[in-house]
Order: sequence, then C-alpha cells, then structure tokens
Amino acid sequence: MSQKKDILSIRDLTKEDILFILETAASLKEILDRPIKKVPPLRGKTMVHLFFEPSTRTKLSFELAAKRLSADTVGISKSSSSVTKGEDLIDTAKNIEAMRPDVLVLRHPCSGAAHLMAKAVNCSVINAGDGTNEHPTQALLDMFTVKEHFGTLEGLKIAIIGDILHSRVAHSDMIGFTKMGSEVVICGPGTLIPPAPEIYGVKVEYNLLDAIKDADVVMALRLQKERQGKHLIPSDREYASLFGINAEILQKTKSEAIIMHPGPINRGIEMSPDVADSDRSLILNQVTNGVAVRMALLSILMAETGGQRQ
Amino acid sequence: MSQKKDILSIRDLTKEDILFILETAASLKEILDRPIKKVPPLRGKTMVHLFFEPSTRTKLSFELAAKRLSADTVGISKSSSSVTKGEDLIDTAKNIEAMRPDVLVLRHPCSGAAHLMAKAVNCSVINAGDGTNEHPTQALLDMFTVKEHFGTLEGLKIAIIGDILHSRVAHSDMIGFTKMGSEVVICGPGTLIPPAPEIYGVKVEYNLLDAIKDADVVMALRLQKERQGKHLIPSDREYASLFGINAEILQKTKSEAIIMHPGPINRGIEMSPDVADSDRSLILNQVTNGVAVRMALLSILMAETGGQRQ
Amino acid sequence: MSQKKDILSIRDLTKEDILFILETAASLKEILDRPIKKVPPLRGKTMVHLFFEPSTRTKLSFELAAKRLSADTVGISKSSSSVTKGEDLIDTAKNIEAMRPDVLVLRHPCSGAAHLMAKAVNCSVINAGDGTNEHPTQALLDMFTVKEHFGTLEGLKIAIIGDILHSRVAHSDMIGFTKMGSEVVICGPGTLIPPAPEIYGVKVEYNLLDAIKDADVVMALRLQKERQGKHLIPSDREYASLFGINAEILQKTKSEAIIMHPGPINRGIEMSPDVADSDRSLILNQVTNGVAVRMALLSILMAETGGQRQ
Repeated sequence: MSQKKDILSIRDLTKEDILFILETAASLKEILDRPIKKVPPLRGKTMVHLFFEPSTRTKLSFELAAKRLSADTVGISKSSSSVTKGEDLIDTAKNIEAMRPDVLVLRHPCSGAAHLMAKAVNCSVINAGDGTNEHPTQALLDMFTVKEHFGTLEGLKIAIIGDILHSRVAHSDMIGFTKMGSEVVICGPGTLIPPAPEIYGVKVEYNLLDAIKDADVVMALRLQKERQGKHLIPSDREYASLFGINAEILQKTKSEAIIMHPGPINRGIEMSPDVADSDRSLILNQVTNGVAVRMALLSILMAETGGQRQ
Repeated sequence: MSQKKDILSIRDLTKEDILFILETAASLKEILDRPIKKVPPLRGKTMVHLFFEPSTRTKLSFELAAKRLSADTVGISKSSSSVTKGEDLIDTAKNIEAMRPDVLVLRHPCSGAAHLMAKAVNCSVINAGDGTNEHPTQALLDMFTVKEHFGTLEGLKIAIIGDILHSRVAHSDMIGFTKMGSEVVICGPGTLIPPAPEIYGVKVEYNLLDAIKDADVVMALRLQKERQGKHLIPSDREYASLFGINAEILQKTKSEAIIMHPGPINRGIEMSPDVADSDRSLILNQVTNGVAVRMALLSILMAETGGQRQ
Repeated sequence: MSQKKDILSIRDLTKEDILFILETAASLKEILDRPIKKVPPLRGKTMVHLFFEPSTRTKLSFELAAKRLSADTVGISKSSSSVTKGEDLIDTAKNIEAMRPDVLVLRHPCSGAAHLMAKAVNCSVINAGDGTNEHPTQALLDMFTVKEHFGTLEGLKIAIIGDILHSRVAHSDMIGFTKMGSEVVICGPGTLIPPAPEIYGVKVEYNLLDAIKDADVVMALRLQKERQGKHLIPSDREYASLFGINAEILQKTKSEAIIMHPGPINRGIEMSPDVADSDRSLILNQVTNGVAVRMALLSILMAETGGQRQ
C-alpha cells in the first residue's frame, strides 16, 4: 500500500490500497473470535478521539479497535470542549499533537474538518465523519462486508436508497464501490439526490422497484430527522411508503440479495423491523466488521508512520 | 455456583450462589490492600458500561473492578446517546454485542431495562440499577459488609429505614437478606411502604424506635429529592425528625449495631453527620467492598462464559 | 525532595523541591520522543481525575501522563455528578478514596477545593486548578519550559501580561518564578491587578512597553470572556490595543525573548496570530512539557507514598 499519513477520503485510496486494507481487516477479524481478544502490536501507541457530534457505535468501534491492538485511548467530547470554528479546531489539533499522540480520530459537524486538521498536524488523522462530506471508514466496512459475503466487489450491483444528498456514508460508498468495479444505483426523492450524480459514476432511479431490480446489495440510509420540516420530504409516512424497504419490497429483490444499513435504523421508516432482522440482513455483520476494519487502519497507519513523525 | 449468563436480580440467585459470590469477593478484596492492585485474569476481556442515569460511585466501582482484573472498559453515557425507548435499547444492545464485548453493565431509569437487554444479547449483562426495581450488586455488597462484620447473616436483624417503595436498593436487600436467613424490618412513612410487604417476607414498623429495637444493622436509605412536592412526605424536616438516624437514635440501638447507607447521604435528613462519621458506621466499608464484589461478579461471569458466546 | 502527600500550591514547594521536579520531568520527557511511549513504573496504580470545569488540554495531559507510566485512569466529570458544595465534595472524595485510588486530580471552580479534598483523604491529591487561586502544575511546566530554554531561572525577567487578578496561572507563576530567583513584572489594566502585588514580591507596570522592556519571557494570559460586561475592561478591542502582544510589540522585546501563553489563545485579543505562531513562541513546547511535568509529579507522589496509605 502506498505510504499514507491520513485516512480522510475514499478518493485518496487506490483500488490496491482498498484491497490491502480489506485483506488486513480479514486477518485481524479472526482475533475477534478468540476468547482473549487482545494482541500487542500497538502497545505504547496512543489514539486520541475527538467526537464533536454524538456517536455510540463509531466511537465504541474505534476505542475497541485500539484497545484490542493494545493501544491507549483518550478522548475529548463536544461537551467538555467548546471547539466549533475552523481556526479553533487547528489550535486544538496543534495542542493535542504537542502531547505526542500517534493517531487522531475526528468526527465533526463541518465538512472538511478532518482535512483541515490533517494539514495542521504531523501525526495521522482518521476522518470518522465530517459533516455531509465523507465517512470513509464506514465505506470500507461496507465494502468489507459485501466482499466477505460475495467473494468479490467486481460486477455487483449496489442499490443505495434514501437521502443521498446529505449522507456522508453514501458519498464515501459511491466513490468506493464504483472504484472497486461495482455498479452503483442511487434512489430517493428528487430533493435528496445530488445535483450532478454523474460525477460519482452512478446511475439514478427515482422508483424504488427499478433501483432494486437485479441488485445484489440493497443499502438503506438513515432518514435524518433534521431534514424534516425543511420541505425536502412531505412526511415520514410518505417516505416509508415510497422508499421504505419492507417485506413486500424484499420479495421483489433477487433471492441472494443482501440488506445493509449504516445504523442506527429508524424502524418502520426507511426499513421495516422484519427486514432489518431477517436472515438477508447483514446489518450486525457490518458492525462487527467495523471493528476489524478500524483495527486494520490503526495498524497500517501506526506501522507505516512508526508513530508520530517529528 | 450454577451457571449464570447475567446478574439481573437477587431473585435469580440461590443462597449457595450468594455465598459463593461473597467468598470470591473476600478472596479478591485482599488485592485492594496491595501496593500493586492489579491481577491478570481478565486480560483481553471487555466490559462495556452503559449508564443512562448519572452515577459517580457505581460507575467508578465497576470501572475500577474491571481494570484491577486487567479487563478493558469502554462506555457510553446518556449525553452521548439518545437511547430512551425499549425498542431502541434493544438495537443499541445488539449493535454493541456485535462488537464482541464480554459483559455489558447497564444502569437505566426504566424498571426491567436490564432484563430486556439480557434477553436480546448472548453476552453477559449486569444490572447496575434499573428504575425502582433492583440494584443487585448493591445488595451483594451490603450482604458482604454485614457478613464480614458479624461472620454470618443468619439470624441477624436488619432494619431498613426510609423510602422503601421507590428504592431499588431496598428491594434487592429485602430479597437478599431474607434469603440468607436474616430477619428484615422495614420502616418509613406509610406513603413510602410497598403495598404488600408480606411478599418480601419482611416485617413493617411505622415507628423508628420499634424498628431499630434489637437491630444488628440499621440501614438508612437516601431520601430522593424527586419524591418531594408529590405529597408523599410533608417536608425534609418532618422526615428527619421522625425517621432520621441521629445521635439520640443511635444511643437507643444495641451497642454492637452497625450503621449503613448506600450513599450518597443527605446529611441532616436521613442521617446526621455525627452518625454517618461515627465508628459504628460502615458506610465507607460498603464502598470498598463494592469494588471487591464487582470484581467477583466480573470474574465469575467471564470465567463461566469464557467470554462472549457465539 | 521532602516527603509530599499532595501538590496543592507552589507555596508548599521549596526551591529544591521545584528543581527536583524539573529534573525528574527532564529525564521523563525523553520517553515522549520514543516510538513506544510507555514505561511500566506505575503499573497497578490508579489515578482518578475529577474535572468539575471544562478542560481539554489539562485533562488529556494528566491522562496521557498516567497512561505513559502504565497507571490506570478513571474519571468523573461535572455532567455525570452534581458535586458543587464544599461538604458534598468531601463526601465524594471519601467515597472515591474508599475505592483505593493512588492519586486524585481535581479541577474545581471554587478556590481552596483541592486543599479541602486533600485534608479529607489519605491518598495524594493534585490541584489541577482551583477557582482563581492556583494552578501549580501549569506553573511547574512554565518553569520547566523557561529553564529548558535558558538553562536557568535565576536572574531572568518574566513579564506576565493580562488579567493577573483572576488568573490562577498567574498566581502560581508569580510565586514560583520569584522563588526560583527570577524577577517578575506584572502588567494589565488597573482593574485586573491584585490589590497588594507586593506580597508576591513582583513589580507592577501599567504600560506594556515598560513591562516588556528587557524581559526574557513575555507571558500573555487568556482574557477570560466572563470578565467582560462586568466593567473590568471597556472592550476586547481596547484591551488588544493596549495589552495585546502583536508583531510591533514583539519587535520591541529583546531579540532573545521568548513568548509564552497557558492556552487556549484568544487569537487577535491578547496575542496576534503571527506572534503565537512565530519562532519566538514556545507555546506548543509548554504543552509537550506539561505531559513530562505531570509524569514527574505522578511518579514522585506514587513512589514516595507507595500508593495509598492505609
């Protein structure tokens, strides 16, 4: 894999980089099935996590990934700090860097925050979600999950359903899956489709049945409640009736198609409970794989950099 | 001890189970007196704590218990998550379980939350307090403290004073002490006594002097401020004059009787400062013993299950 | 170094104590430049941090210092606890002490809180900032930074600029630097100068140019926003024009003078960005040195006490 300081965007990764990350994750995933889920490679390394948005699963996933590789973790949250503006974020970053961490993991409500931070510091930065821009580690765990299931990403049809416009998960997934040779179809209300989808090399469908036809993967996105009342969708109920994945829709997918969701699910809106809990759903596998993928990224960054560069 | 997946309620434990837990705690307590208070048995195991109510001592106690056995700990708090309804709690639990923790420790404002979670996941769950229902680890540390002091629980008279109706501590203690052969007397304002105390096998007294007469243990409960203004007690001051444990009351107990309290104390309300700090008070011993009891529970659950079951 | 239980105030430390701490920090700082920044001396020791005010850098600094010496850390924050009054703080302290930690680190909005806590417990207490009183670990890292740069503290002129009256950093620095033989000059608006500066053995200047003349160190303090609107300063802008350290002021200092700031900086108010980021600025060195100084203090306290005293 080409030398990397940071993981900020799926754009920065070549097909070979992605394959290397997924292979590393596959070899590390095996540790999660051991009774003693801890190995020593990152002993004495430090991950600092900065979550300026609430998070349960991504934060825990990074913390567990670090601890299982024997790294130390410390973190700051929004409530214990008042970082909001770009310039202040740089000062925070430089101050934390001065304490000699090896990797910073940042979730931030502003698109571009991780890039800004990465430019300011010499240590590694991982983007754990920046505004509506990207969520590269989620896309990597999504690709891992699909590749683990089908053995390949090449030639598969991936249907991503929902609020594509504001979803950092969708942005990273569109870039990642097309790069790996999958065909990506996006589908959602016209108000939630990006203005120039062709730049992602994806196809747009406005009818759910057209989108899921022949799809190998049906990925529903979380309908973010903060979009409502902004006249982007008429109501939850209408959204569910047009774009929700329920048993009837599942019936119309290929019998080997799998169901995915980045979580947390609004049960009954973008996905019905029976679909979320069906044996076609790989939603909890995604969560398990997230730990393995983050272990891979931490290993690769800390091994390549030998820790913080002076 | 019979194989256990979870510690949810004192009801689920036999007398033999409780004795085994207390003996294990006694052998682990010795570690707390060493200069190096850390032993390796749970290396590579992970405890995830989910505290959806504020807590200082219980949360610290679990975290220290885990770390002293070399387990890793990660946690989420109410402020970093929006889990409130039953169904969402199950999704949170299943997602965390997918990251392969060994034990989940849950404090939740809803009675029954820990049972709900335990049914949803295959890993172990410890109830660290669920609504007004139970607080089994507190009852175990209370029994440990009394047994350590008197050498037995059999035949002792335990007087529990205060808001029995809403106290999860009292519920677990009534079940536990009676199971171990102690005689339990409860005492408090009529509005704060459960409607059918006989189901607990305890005696009710409405006069404090009758309750503490011949008692070996006088346990005062915290008067929860949120009960006031609900017409359950007329005022703090009246409560203190009728049910507060002060020097005069202490005088009327047996000379070998001990004073306990689950903390935090409202000094001057349910107990006067001189009693709380007297040499008859074992309140701080309870706190120390809490760490030992939680070390015992973590050891037993993780040894029995060999970590997470697949 | 004379036997110490606590680090509460620079007043309690002799010149020899301070030199010993700075020398210990110098030898530990070297660990921060290793690829594996972890050494075992405090394995099995526990630091509990109680931050009742928001903090990013001091909290992270203590946590990293502890972890790099292999100590375990657990903490409580304001949001998870409701400790505010003196008496409750003592109860909290005694309860935490009962869990057998080795060191408590306290930041608290009330002046004197750390002293109160230290009197209540047998384990060590480190004052990480108490109200407007003292911030001794900051003063130690400031002295470390100056001594590292100039080789000595004796005979240097230290100009401290800003809100001296309310700054716990300034109070600790005035006591520390004068004790070590430096000459300290304070400068700020008359409303923000302590009423009897002579008790600190420092000189007062009301004109910035007089204060920085011949200074070896120019230390600007953070202008605390909460002072505004209280008629102590007319406006940020006027403050910046009279007491802000900008390029023009930097020009008028000695060419070998260094710039310091305890952080976080209000860029453009007490210091202009070009000065903060100039090669005369040692602000980020202060942050790095903070970790080394806190490693030294934790080592010294835990080695001397052999952990918690019974």
